[in-house]
Amino acid sequence: MRKLINAPENFVNEMLEGVYASHPEKVTFVNNDLRCLVRARVKPGKVGIATGGGSGHLPLFMGYVGEGMLDGCSIGGVFQSPSAEQMLEVTKAINGGAGVLYIYGNYGGDIMNFDMAADMADMEGIRVEQVVAGEDVASAPKGREEKRRGVAGIFYVYKIAGAYAEELASLDEVKRVAAKVCANVRTMGVALSACTIPEVGKPTFEIGEGEMEIGMGIHGEPGIRKGPLQAADQVVEEMLRPILADLPFVRGDEVSVLVNGLGATPKEELYVLYRRVNQLLAEAGIKVYHPYIGEYATSMEMAGASITLLRLDDELKRLLGKPANTPFFIQEQL
Amino acid sequence: MRKLINAPENFVNEMLEGVYASHPEKVTFVNNDLRCLVRARVKPGKVGIATGGGSGHLPLFMGYVGEGMLDGCSIGGVFQSPSAEQMLEVTKAINGGAGVLYIYGNYGGDIMNFDMAADMADMEGIRVEQVVAGEDVASAPKGREEKRRGVAGIFYVYKIAGAYAEELASLDEVKRVAAKVCANVRTMGVALSACTIPEVGKPTFEIGEGEMEIGMGIHGEPGIRKGPLQAADQVVEEMLRPILADLPFVRGDEVSVLVNGLGATPKEELYVLYRRVNQLLAEAGIKVYHPYIGEYATSMEMAGASITLLRLDDELKRLLGKPANTPFFIQEQL
Repeated sequence: MRKLINAPENFVNEMLEGVYASHPEKVTFVNNDLRCLVRARVKPGKVGIATGGGSGHLPLFMGYVGEGMLDGCSIGGVFQSPSAEQMLEVTKAINGGAGVLYIYGNYGGDIMNFDMAADMADMEGIRVEQVVAGEDVASAPKGREEKRRGVAGIFYVYKIAGAYAEELASLDEVKRVAAKVCANVRTMGVALSACTIPEVGKPTFEIGEGEMEIGMGIHGEPGIRKGPLQAADQVVEEMLRPILADLPFVRGDEVSVLVNGLGATPKEELYVLYRRVNQLLAEAGIKVYHPYIGEYATSMEMAGASITLLRLDDELKRLLGKPANTPFFIQEQL
Repeated sequence: MRKLINAPENFVNEMLEGVYASHPEKVTFVNNDLRCLVRARVKPGKVGIATGGGSGHLPLFMGYVGEGMLDGCSIGGVFQSPSAEQMLEVTKAINGGAGVLYIYGNYGGDIMNFDMAADMADMEGIRVEQVVAGEDVASAPKGREEKRRGVAGIFYVYKIAGAYAEELASLDEVKRVAAKVCANVRTMGVALSACTIPEVGKPTFEIGEGEMEIGMGIHGEPGIRKGPLQAADQVVEEMLRPILADLPFVRGDEVSVLVNGLGATPKEELYVLYRRVNQLLAEAGIKVYHPYIGEYATSMEMAGASITLLRLDDELKRLLGKPANTPFFIQEQL
């Protein structure tokens, strides 16, 4: 293993100790459990937004807890769901009386536990609504969108629903906008190497040097095509074509673009990819508003990238442009 | 090669096309040369600050051109110095009449070219001063500080000198503060894997899986010890001890800490490292002000990290806390 860690079983909690030591003015934890992370300051009267998921994807999921985005996050082991009890503790801590919205990715363990947490919260008199994000077009065909994996696109759901909640929109309204983002966002990824779960100690799968897998998921879920690594421009075309066809995105649309690094891919390469995305969108008559390029949803030391497109309307554009300030993401008013 | 690129010879310019397409409101280029990057808006009456250096280190160097930091950057090929002519064009573009300060890392090619550019600027009637940053304690012993390589510590020089220039401090004053940062900053790194220059096509050196090199430079310059990879806590101790001894940092000091990823190392691991840095500094009676954890100076897909400490006084602390807004770095007022 090529990892700067101590005992693998302590990896997640030691990482969290580092996070709390670095950002004490922004985040803290409740129930004496490092894995129940909440905003340091709760805004009264606001809908609370909670997320949660496995570790190993920073800035997902916890990195987006902060002003203008989320209020709390329950944190599981590497690639493991947090428990329903942890989710409930976060829910109780962030409920300011206006209810709580769960936004999380479409993974079996997370769905089961968030459902259970919602039931328990209900018994405690906290109203909870849920939005499950899944937008990876490689993971299920059109018409079966409910089967799709959630990947980097959840960033947009957090950003936009979070901005709306910050304006003290109601739970129903914040849920409506979160669901609208989910309906308008599409992603495709490419992996060039695997990653290693610390407690396992060897790569979860193998991709040879000079190979790639188009459509692979962030836990190594199978993609749609494995083959020799192609030139960046061809890889972009192969990822962007099914994204555009799926929604579909059409001439005259305005979109935000997220070019996301999976962990080991240099920022330089992400900009090479964005260059081609931008060219292809211009050719298709699709306008780009404020692209995001960097690491937004990773898989530890996995090499590769994903491309996400969000179709904007006036409401989504306005909320996307609002400021945010979390330990892992700062945006000024656009 | 595991790289998402097109023809290697086009790598730098295609990356730059992506950068300009992404951040048109923040940066542009002059002299019809993509490698002469400047702020989109020049602030009148302000000392211009220019940097420059080889590609392959994003966010270094160009990523810090923007409000509260730098005004321009000349960009070389991967690990190559830009030319004196490119530096001169940037100098001319950012000179608002108050003179220009060059801040760059201690590398032979850069020194030669910046010296030449300064001479040429002088002939054009532009006053130029220079500050060369070199703070890697592994690269030369105490007493020979002028031989030391510049690495991630230059971030602090940019941040603090940039904030001061933004307040319309004079060229002499901005130079004084930049030199003060250089005198108070120290770094040590560790590499776990090599990186590959696209036009070379194979790693610049080899580090076996399960090995590390303490003190290695960001171009693969030899470190001070090669050996089996140790636990993260031990690696931190081996890096931090010589940093503390060198300045020396002593009980009662206040420092900012930068834990920098070299490219392929997950953010989770950087937080594991920071956790131990924070513990050791607390034991040593050294107070931490606003740590930075993330990728600030990289070596493409190199795995590894560096630790930088900056000793603060009231002046440096005040300027460090000022806001900044560049394509790769946003900070609110602290």
